[in-house]
Amino acid sequence: MSTMATFRFGQHIVKSSAVFLKTELSFALVNRKPVVPGHVLVCPLRVVERFRDLRPDEVADLFMTTQKIADVIEKHFQASSLTIAIQDGPEAGQTVKHVHVHVLPRKAGDFDKNDSIYDELQKHDRENEDVPSKWRSEEEMAKEATELHSLFN
Amino acid sequence: MSTMATFRFGQHIVKSSAVFLKTELSFALVNRKPVVPGHVLVCPLRVVERFRDLRPDEVADLFMTTQKIADVIEKHFQASSLTIAIQDGPEAGQTVKHVHVHVLPRKAGDFDKNDSIYDELQKHDRENEDVPSKWRSEEEMAKEATELHSLFN
Repeated sequence: MSTMATFRFGQHIVKSSAVFLKTELSFALVNRKPVVPGHVLVCPLRVVERFRDLRPDEVADLFMTTQKIADVIEKHFQASSLTIAIQDGPEAGQTVKHVHVHVLPRKAGDFDKNDSIYDELQKHDRENEDVPSKWRSEEEMAKEATELHSLFN
Repeated sequence: MSTMATFRFGQHIVKSSAVFLKTELSFALVNRKPVVPGHVLVCPLRVVERFRDLRPDEVADLFMTTQKIADVIEKHFQASSLTIAIQDGPEAGQTVKHVHVHVLPRKAGDFDKNDSIYDELQKHDRENEDVPSKWRSEEEMAKEATELHSLFN
């Protein structure tokens, strides 16, 4: 979706085919291992590890972008609520050293036990559980990113 | 801390003695039932139920305020990470009909099972578990709010 071939996401390189929105200071990507359908990530373009390290203009852009995406994603995935969370630092479950906002569309009964979405969210970021055999294919991710991208024009 | 005697927090009225920071568009309060020490809430002054309903200037103020508070709170409570989360809508665990950002200082080993902070966070907002017998006293909350207020001058 972008003239950039790849995006830096902490220690990772993300192909632009997985990125569905880019603003002046932020970008949003689909997930290789979504916890629920429509689970996406919104990040500052600048590689910054902790939330406190963001400049005011980056904070504003990140959350105005998150707000826009969250509203579109909730409707698109026929959800009725959203979990919006930052795991800011290793003791909060952060493993990718790049601030990222998790946006998760929520529905009644989406988990047997409503709270377990958070267990899944923390497992999601753990390196020992984040193995290629559990990832979606690049094609599947690119298809979803194209679909989502079309909602923002 | 404020010339306002009380603040509206969704269906609740919060005494200004529990509020430790007020900006042009946001305010922050201590918690009557903190999940971890230093668990505070940051809200827009305007009573708005869902995140999507905030104006851009409110989003920017809310998260710049959250950023400032989170950094101070993390240091003050000798933590090393932060969980920052919005339960946006009933299916995400929201019961107070007023957007609020949970800020929770995190430390290594603060929970037996690291993830259970999220279970606690969702229980925190449930009305049937949110009973006066489990709340801190007004005096205790006012003391903490005064202490926190002093960190922002």
